[in-house]
This record gives sequence, structure tokens and C-alpha cells, in this order.
Amino acid sequence: MQRIEQHACFGGTQEVWQHPSSTLDCQMRFGVYLPPQAARGPCPVLYWLSGLTCTEQNFITKAGAQRYAAEHGLVLVAPDTSPRGSDVPDQEDAWDLGQGAGFYLNATREPWSRHYRMHDYVVDELPALVDAHFPTTTARGISGHSMGGHGALVIALRNPGRYRSVSAFSPIVAPSRVPWGRQAFDAYLGDDEAAWKQWDACELLRDADERLPLLVDQGDADEFLQRELRPDLLRDACEAAGHPLTLRMQPGYDHSYYFIASFIGDHLAHHAAALK
Amino acid sequence: MQRIEQHACFGGTQEVWQHPSSTLDCQMRFGVYLPPQAARGPCPVLYWLSGLTCTEQNFITKAGAQRYAAEHGLVLVAPDTSPRGSDVPDQEDAWDLGQGAGFYLNATREPWSRHYRMHDYVVDELPALVDAHFPTTTARGISGHSMGGHGALVIALRNPGRYRSVSAFSPIVAPSRVPWGRQAFDAYLGDDEAAWKQWDACELLRDADERLPLLVDQGDADEFLQRELRPDLLRDACEAAGHPLTLRMQPGYDHSYYFIASFIGDHLAHHAAALK
Repeated sequence: MQRIEQHACFGGTQEVWQHPSSTLDCQMRFGVYLPPQAARGPCPVLYWLSGLTCTEQNFITKAGAQRYAAEHGLVLVAPDTSPRGSDVPDQEDAWDLGQGAGFYLNATREPWSRHYRMHDYVVDELPALVDAHFPTTTARGISGHSMGGHGALVIALRNPGRYRSVSAFSPIVAPSRVPWGRQAFDAYLGDDEAAWKQWDACELLRDADERLPLLVDQGDADEFLQRELRPDLLRDACEAAGHPLTLRMQPGYDHSYYFIASFIGDHLAHHAAALK
Repeated sequence: MQRIEQHACFGGTQEVWQHPSSTLDCQMRFGVYLPPQAARGPCPVLYWLSGLTCTEQNFITKAGAQRYAAEHGLVLVAPDTSPRGSDVPDQEDAWDLGQGAGFYLNATREPWSRHYRMHDYVVDELPALVDAHFPTTTARGISGHSMGGHGALVIALRNPGRYRSVSAFSPIVAPSRVPWGRQAFDAYLGDDEAAWKQWDACELLRDADERLPLLVDQGDADEFLQRELRPDLLRDACEAAGHPLTLRMQPGYDHSYYFIASFIGDHLAHHAAALK
């Protein structure tokens, strides 16, 4: 594992690391913020999953999360959004399929199944690397934006006991029922829609063993609200399942990092309360 | 003038505008953050000048300043760093001369003198536009980073009475004496070094009429510290002139926006105290 960036930031350090991933069979990068408290002892970790087209850079440069992580003593880990490299299949004419669009699942169809295993990377390989190299406790939270909000919800719901807190910004809550998700699931998982349910937060909520409270922020001026995001479906699924949900519709906010920056402090406080 | 971006942000709005500039004889863009207080009445304005290679985007996406501007009720205005466009001369093999490197001066040499008049744009044309289109008071502060820190110091020193507050991150304090500045001044102003003094903060401090206190933050791990920035020369010049300076050497910090984000809150508090 090789450190390729290191910057002092709010009394801690923002770093970027590169490593060969055995799960994804390619080189991967992730950002890690070590708060000042990490110099004195282990800290809990919040994993952040970014959205379509993003790399490990978007969150670490634009969200302004380090200020709050330094206040709460949280390590922040921000992986890339898909396997990468010239050997990794891509859909060159699409920004919502292939590289930059891993959808945090394990693909079963060709040509994707060898590299596109972001679920296992985020849940197993990455935390093992993080815990081996940085001063972390076993307390973990997970959050993300858009495709990464889908990832955070699905990963928390599929892995009860592994995360103590979960939240999302503008998540794709029902990928089986919206164009971005249907295109990705059809490519990565095939056309048997029954197999899609295990990667769909609204479907997973039906049988969730664990009642981890969900904090979701959604801008009501989000250009993808009605077509791709559908927070109404999440509200319905949580009501039907009796699952605790705090869904905040934020008036005037869009899908950008200006929205995330405006409310990331609330999310870090939510995670810190559960992780301490 | 045309609005090309608008995003809700910390209860206000982050916008980007494009307009034809008569001073620079080209189309220009600038970012403007309107805090929530601007919906209720006029607010003071902090002008931010960015560094080499930047556009109007860097500060608005990476500095995290909007949070503090919303607390203090400050409008933030972030112009581009040079004239732009295919008609505007450029030095294509250099990132530190030509487009992206206007140095906030009025060029006198060819081929630069027609377009490269960033001093007059920032001091006159841009504030007139801002004050005509947005709810602003006449209270103005100015700040910036690196080349833009040079710009903030020089513009404040050349225009006594026009700004109530000034600060800088990692400024080029003595451009006449360092490689970035000497290359730019030689190109834009010619080889008569006497003419350079009116664009050099350390030179201007000798005869400053106004004793506006300077707040300067400088990372001690900045890769350009000894060769280009030389805060020691600013300290000497302020001591010799009896000019008030708060120079904070920040241990471990580099030249990046991670450094700016870490301390921009202090700078906005400094400006807000002077502008209210």
C-alpha cells in the first residue's frame, strides 16, 4: 500500500492511498482523513461512498467533512466508485455504467463479474486494510451520496451488526424501479429481476433483522428526484416494515456537493453519537 | 450578465455569473455566494482572489467558506484569475504566465496590455457589477491565496479607503524578488524594474498611507515557501514601516486548499469584525 497524497487539514491529515485490490483485481485508491485524535489513540471510522462519475477525490475536496471529523474524532474513509484501469471493462459511451458506476454490488454477468465486486471490497477488503494501517476502533458507520447513498443503505442492511450507524444524501432507494438502477442491474446481474432484490434498499427493508435508524437528507430541487431517487418509496418501505427513518426534505437544495456540504455536519454528528 | 449556476448552500445560494468585461475585453465568470441574510437586506462583500491555474471554481468548491459567510452574513465574490478566451494571448507552455496567471496588475507590454488588466477589473468593474446586481453594502474586504494573496495585499495597499479589511493565505509578498513574480512582471510590465514596485506588496508598504492590519496565514510545509512566498520579507517590510501584521506560521500545512479550508473560518471572522 502506497501513500500518494498527504495534507495537513484541520489539525489532522488528509491522505490518499493506492493499493492492489485482490477483490477487484486492479489498483485502487481511497482517501482517508485522520483527525487530530488519531495521533493519541484509535478512532471510529465513517465510510463514505460517492456517486456516479466520482472518484476518491470528490468527497475529500468538496464536502468540507474534515472540520466535523476533527471535532468528533472520526476517521473518514472514501473509496473510489468502481474498479479502475485499462484492463477493467467499461462502457465508454455511458457515465452511468462501467468505470465510475460500480453500484456497490457484486456483478454476476460477463464481462463485469471479475472486477465489479464493490460490495465485497467496501465491506471486507477495505476495512481490513484500513484497520491494519490506521489507528481505528471496530466501530464503523457508513454514508454516501446518490449511487453511494444506495450503497450505504444496501451495505448496512445486508450486513447486520457490522455498522453502528448509517445515513445517506439523495440515495437511489429503489434501484430495481428506476432507470439508473435498472440499467446497472440488468448489465451487472442479468435480467432475472428476482436477483435484484438483494441489492435494493426498499426490498431489503422488508426482511431486515436489524433496526438501524436511517438518516436521509434529500433536496427538493434535486434534478433526479422523481426519476431516479424516489424518497417516497423509502418512506413507504420503512413505514411498512416499521423501520426507523428520519427523512429530511431540504427546500431548494439540488444534487450537488453544495447540498452535501450544507448538511454533512449533521450527518457526522449522527454517526459520532452512535460510534462513541 | 447571465447566471450560469445556482445552488442552495448553507441557507443561501452559491451562484456563478458570466458577463462581457469592458476592462478585460472578453467574457468573464465569477462566483458569488449570497448568505441567508442577503434575502433580508444588504450585506458587506468579501472579494477572494485565487492563485495560479485557478478559475472562479476552485474557491467556491473547495474552501468551505460558505458556512462561515452564512454565519457572518457576508457576500463572497470570487473572480477568475485572468482574462479568458481564444482571442486572449496565452503562454501555452507555461501555467504561471498568461491565462490563469493574470497577477492582478494592469499590463503595459504587448501582447498583454489590451486584455491583462485584472487590477482595474477587480477594483472597479467587478464591484460596480456586484453592487448593481446583488444586495450589498459599500463595506468591502479582500483576501486571496498565493498569486491571489499577492493580489489582495497589493490591491488593498494601492487603494486606501476602498477596503476595510485584508488578509491572505500563502501570498507572494515580494514578486519583484521571486521567480514567479519576476517572470510575470518582465512579461507584463517590461524590464524596467522601477515600474515593478507599484505591484509589489513589500515595496508598497514603504509608503502606505493607510495602516490596514494584515492577517496572513502561511503553512511551514508549503512547497513554495522559500523560493516564491518568503513571508520573512513581509515581516521585515511591516516592521520597517510600522505596519500592523499578524503572520501565523501554521506547522505542517502545505499550499493546498486543505490548508485554506482549515483556516478560512478565522479569516472570515477577521473580515466580518471589520465589515459590520
